[in-house]
Amino acid sequence: MSRHDENVPGLSRRRFLGAASSLAVAAGVIGSGGVAAAERLAKPRALSAVEPFYGVHQGGIVTVQQTHSLFAAFDLEATQRADVIALLKRWTVAANRMSRGETAQPLAVPKDAAPLDGGSAEGLRASRLTVTFGFGPGLFMSDGKDRYGLASRRPEALVDLPKFNGDQLVAEKCGGDLSIQVCADDPQVAFHALRELLALADGVALIKWMQSGFTSPPAGGGTTRNLMGFKDGTNNPSTRDGQMMDQVVWVGDEGGWMKAGSYVVVRRIRIALEHWDRTERGFQEEVVGRDKASGAPLGKAHESDPLDLGAQDKEGNPVIPDNAHARLSAAAENDGAQILRRAYSYNDGVGFYAERWPPWRQGMMLDAGLFFVAYQRDPRSGFIKINKKLATQDIMNQFTTHVGSAIFACPPGAREGSFIGAGLFEGLAG
Amino acid sequence: MSRHDENVPGLSRRRFLGAASSLAVAAGVIGSGGVAAAERLAKPRALSAVEPFYGVHQGGIVTVQQTHSLFAAFDLEATQRADVIALLKRWTVAANRMSRGETAQPLAVPKDAAPLDGGSAEGLRASRLTVTFGFGPGLFMSDGKDRYGLASRRPEALVDLPKFNGDQLVAEKCGGDLSIQVCADDPQVAFHALRELLALADGVALIKWMQSGFTSPPAGGGTTRNLMGFKDGTNNPSTRDGQMMDQVVWVGDEGGWMKAGSYVVVRRIRIALEHWDRTERGFQEEVVGRDKASGAPLGKAHESDPLDLGAQDKEGNPVIPDNAHARLSAAAENDGAQILRRAYSYNDGVGFYAERWPPWRQGMMLDAGLFFVAYQRDPRSGFIKINKKLATQDIMNQFTTHVGSAIFACPPGAREGSFIGAGLFEGLAG
Repeated sequence: MSRHDENVPGLSRRRFLGAASSLAVAAGVIGSGGVAAAERLAKPRALSAVEPFYGVHQGGIVTVQQTHSLFAAFDLEATQRADVIALLKRWTVAANRMSRGETAQPLAVPKDAAPLDGGSAEGLRASRLTVTFGFGPGLFMSDGKDRYGLASRRPEALVDLPKFNGDQLVAEKCGGDLSIQVCADDPQVAFHALRELLALADGVALIKWMQSGFTSPPAGGGTTRNLMGFKDGTNNPSTRDGQMMDQVVWVGDEGGWMKAGSYVVVRRIRIALEHWDRTERGFQEEVVGRDKASGAPLGKAHESDPLDLGAQDKEGNPVIPDNAHARLSAAAENDGAQILRRAYSYNDGVGFYAERWPPWRQGMMLDAGLFFVAYQRDPRSGFIKINKKLATQDIMNQFTTHVGSAIFACPPGAREGSFIGAGLFEGLAG
Repeated sequence: MSRHDENVPGLSRRRFLGAASSLAVAAGVIGSGGVAAAERLAKPRALSAVEPFYGVHQGGIVTVQQTHSLFAAFDLEATQRADVIALLKRWTVAANRMSRGETAQPLAVPKDAAPLDGGSAEGLRASRLTVTFGFGPGLFMSDGKDRYGLASRRPEALVDLPKFNGDQLVAEKCGGDLSIQVCADDPQVAFHALRELLALADGVALIKWMQSGFTSPPAGGGTTRNLMGFKDGTNNPSTRDGQMMDQVVWVGDEGGWMKAGSYVVVRRIRIALEHWDRTERGFQEEVVGRDKASGAPLGKAHESDPLDLGAQDKEGNPVIPDNAHARLSAAAENDGAQILRRAYSYNDGVGFYAERWPPWRQGMMLDAGLFFVAYQRDPRSGFIKINKKLATQDIMNQFTTHVGSAIFACPPGAREGSFIGAGLFEGLAG
C-alpha cells in the first residue's frame, strides 16, 4: 500500500506512457477515454514563478515572503538511521519537483494502483513554492536515547529552548524531531506539497502538529500589517543585504555541517484580539512603540526613521516607553542581537476561554494571532537572548500568549544530486 | 468600552479631521507626527475589484467564487428584537463599507479611544469581498421560546435538517441563530471583515463556530480541483444562466419576505485523505464516477459531456457504478433536484484519531476536507432530498465524515438605505 515503495512492480514510466509527460501520468490519465485529456495535461504547469530548490542555502528563509505558509513538525518513528536518510532523499526529490510545479513523484501508475501524487495541485502554478526542512533536538537525542548514532553531531547552537516567563505552552503544539515549512503564493499548492511530503514519510515519521498562516502584502508595496493592525517587520534586517544575512542568519565556519544553514524558532502566539480592539489607540501605540497608521517610531515622522531610544518628552519621560515592544526588541537594547523574522498571521477559528479578567474573556474567543517564525545564526545570541527580555518586560504580553514553541536546525541547501542534510551523515559508520 | 456606541462623545469626524479622509482617521493617524502619514493614507484602497453589497440579491451566492472564505455562526444573546434589528443595521453599513475597501466604521477616534476599525486590512484592496448574512432557525424559535416575536414569520422552507445516515456531527461545529459568510480574494481582507463584524455584535450575538476555506482556480481557467484531486463542480448549474438561478437558487413569490433570497446548507465534511491517497486510481474514479485527469464522466471523453446513466459495459454492468457519487447526486436521479454548490476546501491541521479500520487510522491524521456550501430555493427539495440518497448509498461515504452542519435563510439583498433582512421585520408591532 505504500506510495513510496520504489519496488512496486510495473511502475516504470516507459511501460505505461512512452513519450507522454509524467505529469499526465501521475494525474492518472491512462485509460477510460483519457487520451485527449492526456494531451491537454501534458504541458507542465507554468513555471514562471519558480523558487529554485537546490542551492547554497535552503529556500523559504531569505526568499521574498509568500502569502501562505504551512509549518509541520514530525515525530520520528524509524529505528534505523538509514530510514531517516532514505526519507530525506525522497523529500529532497519531491520538494525539488514540486517547487518546479511538477507532481511529487514522477512514476506512472496503472488504474489498479494508488496514484503517486494525489493530484490536488494539478493545473495550478508553481506559485513560488519553497520547502524548508529542519532537524529538531529529537533527531540527535530522544528520551536519553541516541537512536540514530547522531548525538555527537548535534550542533551546540541547537539548544533546547528555556522556559520563558509567561509561557503557556501546549504540548501538542510544541517540538518535533523534524520540521517542514511550506510557503507558496497559493494555499492549495502549499497544502498539496505538505500532504505529498507527509505521505512520503509513511512509516518513518508521523506528523505531530501543523500550523497554517497567511500574510497579505499591501497593494502599493511596503511593510505588511499583522492582526494588531500595525506594520510588522519594519526593523527586520534586509534580506537583500548579503553581508547582513551572513552575520545574522547564516551559520558560518563555526557550524561544521550546519555551515550555510540557519536555526529557526517558531512560536504560536495567540493574540487576545477582542481585548486589543477595545484598547485606546494611544495605548496601542505605546505598547508597540510606533504610530499605528504610519509605522513611524514614536516621536518620528517616517516608518524608516531609526528609533530614538534616548528621546524624552517635556516631562522627562521616554518618548518610546521603557516597556514598549519596539524598544525591548531593538538590537541596541540586546547587545546587537538580531534575528530575521518571517512571521505569518493565523486564524484557527474560535474556542472557549474562561479567564477571570478582563470580563469579556469568558466565552467564545478567536483562536488567532501570530505564528512567529525567526531565523538566526545562533539562537542563544538571537531569539533566546531577545525573548528573555521581552518575556519579562514587554507590555505587549498583556495581549499575547505563547502557546506553541519549537526549534529546528535548518541545514544548508542541497546540491543537485545530493539531499537535504547530507552533511550531517557524512563519514558516519554504517 | 463598546466599539459600536453611536453616542460616544467626540466621535464626530469633522471635529478631528476637517477635510482628511475617514480612512486615514479610522487608521488612527491623528497626533504624534502622523500628518505625512495621513496624507499617504488619505487615498482609499484600490477599488478596482469591488463586488457591490447592495442589490436585489445578496453577494457571495452567484458571485464568481473568491479564493478565500470564512463562515461564522452566531448565538443570539439579545433579549429584545430591537437589538437584533440594530445589529443588522450596523452589519449592513459595515459590510457595504468594507466591500468597497473601506474601514468598517467611518468615525474618527482620538488617541484615548479604541479605534473603530482594527486596521488589519489597511493598505489592502477590496479583493472582491462579499458578506452574506443568514438567519438560522433559532432566530425564530429557540428552546421553544419565541424570543423576538418572529415565530410566525419563520419560512416553511427553513426546516431543521434531519439526521442523515452516517452523520457524526459535533455540536460545537453545528447550527447557529445567525450566519455570516465572508469571501474575498485575500485571506487578510476576509479575516478583517469578519473580525470587525464580530466586534459590532458585542452584547447581541456571540460567535459559535468559524470555518475557513480556500479554493484555487486553475491557471488556465476551468473547474477547480478539491482535495481528492478531482474536478469539483462540473455539473453545477451555471450562475450565468439567470433563468436557471431563478429556478434553482432564488426564492420566488412563494417565499414572502424571503423572495429573492436563498437557503444555504453547510456541511463540514472531513475527508480521510490518508485513506483516499492509498486507494487505487481506478477505484477513485468509480467512487466519483468521473475520470480523474479530465473530469469526463466515465465512458465519455470530455468534462462537459453529460453523464450517460444508462450506459453499460460488455458484461452489462453500468459504466457509471450504481453507487458512484456523480450518479447519485445527478438531477436525473433526484426528480430534477438541483442545488448550487459553492464549496471550499479546508485544512485545520492535524488531530488524533483512533478508528479500528483501516489500520493507519490510528494516530495523527489531517483534519482537512471539504466545507460544503450549497444554495437553493428550497432545501426540502434541494439538499435534503439529494443528501438522503447520498447518505445511504454513496460509496464516497467510505472516505468522508460529516462533522458539522447548519442551515440558514439568506434574505434578499438590501437596498441602499435599508438593511439586511428588513422585510422580515416589516409590519411587526413594537
